[in-house]
Amino acid sequence: MYKVAIIGASGYTGGELLRMLLNHPEVEITDITSRKYDGTPAHKIHPHIRDSELEFKNKSPSELDADVVFTATPHGASMKIVPELLDAGMKVVDLSGDYRYRDTEVYEKWYGMEHTDKDNKGAFGLPELYRDEIKKAKLVANPGCFPTGAILSSYPLVKNNLVDRIVIDSKTGVSGAGINPSSTTHYPNIADNVNPYKISSHRHMSEIQQELHGFDDVKVSFTPHLVPVNRGLQTTSHSFLIDDITVEELREFYEKEYGDEYFIKLMDEGEIPHLSSVRGSNFVHIGGFEIDETGRIVMLSVIDNLVKGASGQAIQNMNILLGLDESTGLTHFGLHP
Amino acid sequence: MYKVAIIGASGYTGGELLRMLLNHPEVEITDITSRKYDGTPAHKIHPHIRDSELEFKNKSPSELDADVVFTATPHGASMKIVPELLDAGMKVVDLSGDYRYRDTEVYEKWYGMEHTDKDNKGAFGLPELYRDEIKKAKLVANPGCFPTGAILSSYPLVKNNLVDRIVIDSKTGVSGAGINPSSTTHYPNIADNVNPYKISSHRHMSEIQQELHGFDDVKVSFTPHLVPVNRGLQTTSHSFLIDDITVEELREFYEKEYGDEYFIKLMDEGEIPHLSSVRGSNFVHIGGFEIDETGRIVMLSVIDNLVKGASGQAIQNMNILLGLDESTGLTHFGLHP
Amino acid sequence: MYKVAIIGASGYTGGELLRMLLNHPEVEITDITSRKYDGTPAHKIHPHIRDSELEFKNKSPSELDADVVFTATPHGASMKIVPELLDAGMKVVDLSGDYRYRDTEVYEKWYGMEHTDKDNKGAFGLPELYRDEIKKAKLVANPGCFPTGAILSSYPLVKNNLVDRIVIDSKTGVSGAGINPSSTTHYPNIADNVNPYKISSHRHMSEIQQELHGFDDVKVSFTPHLVPVNRGLQTTSHSFLIDDITVEELREFYEKEYGDEYFIKLMDEGEIPHLSSVRGSNFVHIGGFEIDETGRIVMLSVIDNLVKGASGQAIQNMNILLGLDESTGLTHFGLHP
Amino acid sequence: MYKVAIIGASGYTGGELLRMLLNHPEVEITDITSRKYDGTPAHKIHPHIRDSELEFKNKSPSELDADVVFTATPHGASMKIVPELLDAGMKVVDLSGDYRYRDTEVYEKWYGMEHTDKDNKGAFGLPELYRDEIKKAKLVANPGCFPTGAILSSYPLVKNNLVDRIVIDSKTGVSGAGINPSSTTHYPNIADNVNPYKISSHRHMSEIQQELHGFDDVKVSFTPHLVPVNRGLQTTSHSFLIDDITVEELREFYEKEYGDEYFIKLMDEGEIPHLSSVRGSNFVHIGGFEIDETGRIVMLSVIDNLVKGASGQAIQNMNILLGLDESTGLTHFGLHP
Repeated sequence: MYKVAIIGASGYTGGELLRMLLNHPEVEITDITSRKYDGTPAHKIHPHIRDSELEFKNKSPSELDADVVFTATPHGASMKIVPELLDAGMKVVDLSGDYRYRDTEVYEKWYGMEHTDKDNKGAFGLPELYRDEIKKAKLVANPGCFPTGAILSSYPLVKNNLVDRIVIDSKTGVSGAGINPSSTTHYPNIADNVNPYKISSHRHMSEIQQELHGFDDVKVSFTPHLVPVNRGLQTTSHSFLIDDITVEELREFYEKEYGDEYFIKLMDEGEIPHLSSVRGSNFVHIGGFEIDETGRIVMLSVIDNLVKGASGQAIQNMNILLGLDESTGLTHFGLHP
Repeated sequence: MYKVAIIGASGYTGGELLRMLLNHPEVEITDITSRKYDGTPAHKIHPHIRDSELEFKNKSPSELDADVVFTATPHGASMKIVPELLDAGMKVVDLSGDYRYRDTEVYEKWYGMEHTDKDNKGAFGLPELYRDEIKKAKLVANPGCFPTGAILSSYPLVKNNLVDRIVIDSKTGVSGAGINPSSTTHYPNIADNVNPYKISSHRHMSEIQQELHGFDDVKVSFTPHLVPVNRGLQTTSHSFLIDDITVEELREFYEKEYGDEYFIKLMDEGEIPHLSSVRGSNFVHIGGFEIDETGRIVMLSVIDNLVKGASGQAIQNMNILLGLDESTGLTHFGLHP
Repeated sequence: MYKVAIIGASGYTGGELLRMLLNHPEVEITDITSRKYDGTPAHKIHPHIRDSELEFKNKSPSELDADVVFTATPHGASMKIVPELLDAGMKVVDLSGDYRYRDTEVYEKWYGMEHTDKDNKGAFGLPELYRDEIKKAKLVANPGCFPTGAILSSYPLVKNNLVDRIVIDSKTGVSGAGINPSSTTHYPNIADNVNPYKISSHRHMSEIQQELHGFDDVKVSFTPHLVPVNRGLQTTSHSFLIDDITVEELREFYEKEYGDEYFIKLMDEGEIPHLSSVRGSNFVHIGGFEIDETGRIVMLSVIDNLVKGASGQAIQNMNILLGLDESTGLTHFGLHP
Repeated sequence: MYKVAIIGASGYTGGELLRMLLNHPEVEITDITSRKYDGTPAHKIHPHIRDSELEFKNKSPSELDADVVFTATPHGASMKIVPELLDAGMKVVDLSGDYRYRDTEVYEKWYGMEHTDKDNKGAFGLPELYRDEIKKAKLVANPGCFPTGAILSSYPLVKNNLVDRIVIDSKTGVSGAGINPSSTTHYPNIADNVNPYKISSHRHMSEIQQELHGFDDVKVSFTPHLVPVNRGLQTTSHSFLIDDITVEELREFYEKEYGDEYFIKLMDEGEIPHLSSVRGSNFVHIGGFEIDETGRIVMLSVIDNLVKGASGQAIQNMNILLGLDESTGLTHFGLHP
């Protein structure tokens, strides 16, 4: 059994890591840390995790005994912790934004703070694109939820130079806002409502742009919306063709790219991806495959923002780091309905 | 008191007409018709409409006694009924798609049926754009819900020749699908879900295109999504600038166009339009007013799909037809929260 | 036009008072007060209230100029303010719990604080039971939301000595918890969930008991549940018959009690009261009228917790205080669906 | 690997059996049957079950090759199928009501049809009460969802002769109504609503009564409510003490009864059971443990209606029938949030 630890385990991504790792056949959890909840049993914060004998501890990174550590810490906090973990010989999957950028200046611009650990470089933890880099890495920067849904739904379009502009219109469940209550997540403000936010300036746009217009000069825009959904992230990608292609050709580009991917399922013709199909699971459903008379491609994707958009993908990365089968402990289908 | 009647009063738009007309100070309802529910009291179908003494009757158009008749009938049915009403000297507000198109060929293409009443032309019942035509009309074609939200949010952009492409990404409440249950509206398929549908081919696209690229050669695309909301229609409009403008200039175009409109409220800077602010009301909230670094304008609007998107706008049109103040009976603010 | 003012207008009940009073034909709002939001326009807090020219002011009670003042203040705060208002000759409708108890010792036990204004006695503001007292009052204690739903659904049972035990099992919308976010109202904790709370010790139990076992020695219990609903309060009342009666006799007791009440609608046989039928309205729908083989009566009621359960009933009380028709400004039916 | 088959696999309970059995380490699914969907791949009906190579077949019972067969068929249909399966030597877990009654006259009264297979007797498939009978059985009658939640929350009260009356007030998610749309499950009728139904005459009452007043003369009543929840069944049990006991004694009765049960978790003091804690899982959370001044005990329980209330419990029963560890394939915690 490999040993794993979770730093900052009291949030939703921490809870999800616990839920999935406790059913993972090849790992045991040695520590879960929290400054605030030192000494508190796990189920007091995560009411579904019963009788686990796990308790939050206020431990420093160097006190941990683990093969892989998940840092489920806020951006800014991770870069203070990760160097110490790496120095101690532990591998790290970081769930914050701190190590996602090839160019730390882009990070500094969008996150509004100085990057204090420019030396350690993370592999971008989207295994479907960067599997080989991840295998060799000591540090994996787990992508954001919006970027995961957006990049996977549009990557074949830019890789094959099909479009010159992409508009990502995303709708996310409220768990993406985290475990702490605020006016934004107050039930009467969310229920029966649709709330766009940071409509031209969400920081995940920079992460999406990094991945989608590396190939060519594609204009990438992004607008997120909060919808009355617990979990789940639906992405509608509107892209504009440079040259005409057929719907059949469009589908082939996706099949070629994703046909062998365990976690990506391409929908049949006429099938709409449903959030419920991936709820609680690490799968990605991609559909759409339509082109309208103005030359617009419409692609759709769904993920669970806390699983493939966070903790599930982190475990997928851990499996790769440990040399395990990538799907170990992640084989459950979604919770539909 | 003016007399009004409702043909096809057993659906949601019929229920909304009843709710609002029963509190309208200048009209009385003489008849509500339904073939299926002949003899049934109104509250058996619309459980909120109590003690109204109204009963559905299976009456033919010529049996009605009304100054204005609302035809809350499906497309295809309206064009069979409207000519008889007009011949009998009654004015008509039609809530179907039958009379919305200047070019009946467009109608025939998108609705897949022959138009059998090409002689009667309806004024397009969006008072904020066509108030003068409506005043003179005998027949008003009440717009669809998606077009109302989309056109109002983007009209100043095309009128002032600012953009060459518009992508309308709309999120609608489920009441828009009507009172009859189906797999699409089955609670477990909607709750905690986001369902895009007819992603490149919804027939409301043709109505939006008619209104938005009359001015110039603008490419207009449209994708609707069903979200877990009862009432309400949120529209995010992504448009691409021909020439650079500032955010201040952008706002001015909207203020100039809508500054005097009773039912349109422009949001302050930083204010996001909320569905709850217009729930149950005839108001439209328009916000956004942002431009990103790729030259994309983001505009947002919200309406209640059953009110400004259907029955409220129909009453607004009736008020104009009867020479009443346009806001009579429609002055309530939305039901927030 | 009568003048009215609202003290503590920045919460949900304040917003509802504004929404309804702005459409009330016989009153004008002279002041809305808030210590926290002094100088802020109303729509910044209540986004649906547009262009009202109302602004929160930090005014003291004696500075107000009003025929009736609504104190939408927390318990404990009202009893500090009300004496000054009454001394200044203004009539008061208090929405807190401070004046609801005939016996202030009961108040002090359940609210855990000393009552500092034992001299002023409020009429219990449930017009269907206490209309004559309210007419003569200067101070009306507007009932709680749970008590309104519970008392109205069960009052005929105790008045006619039919039962010896009543269990009130209530399900409330989240707006009842107020405008301030907390872990309790965090969307992911409410959505797709049912949360019982204070299952044997909610303070509204004492208010229900005061009204329901004044007539005789009836044991009254109460358990509230938070359900994923914005507005609305559904009450299921389980009562146990002392002597057998028929369902027809049961219904007659209710018809005799409520047959002439404008705001109470008794459901037909087989009709279930729906929250949507009263959403946003001041109506109460009462149904059930069943007796099972164990001698249990099941009665059901629905109200909008913010309207008949708070601000609408407050306006109903204001109408009585001002000698207006009790339904003035409150005639709209609910927002179904 | 043991072989299992599912008859009537196209509903929600069929989908849940597939989801869980496909991750069960000791069984393989040999057949899924459906008359209506003969030849259709599983994912066309259950969109989350991808690449399973399973296809619905219109097979007769005798064509199946299985150690255990799940009959996920409607009541009335099961009793036509089960005898043939038993005769062919297969063990059966029946998810309908057909074999749940010790006295088939009770069945005939509540289900309104003749019982045509009175000879085969099922063990009542609530392992926490009937583990030994199930071990020896060839046919297990899987309990209803409401009875599972109700019986488990109140059983220690009747077993220990503490109460003389129990009122079960249950709130269920909409998936309990099945996969077929109806007016009852139409999104606008459920969302933002609470719908009591069959308030004194739901047939599950008879099943609850069978189990809860076998011990003594206890009056058992039951009222179900549909709430805007996808999955989950929350039960509030109001019971009336014969003699006074303390809260500590009350808790001890539950700890004695359930302390060693893998799937039952007793909440700490002050902890409220949450539907999300058991969502998608086979666990039961039981809390409450309060007694009010009128001698009423309040107990609370939550289950996932499709898992512990149906398919999960069926697999638990299958594990017992096959001599496997009872929790095999059912160890996942709930999907919170």
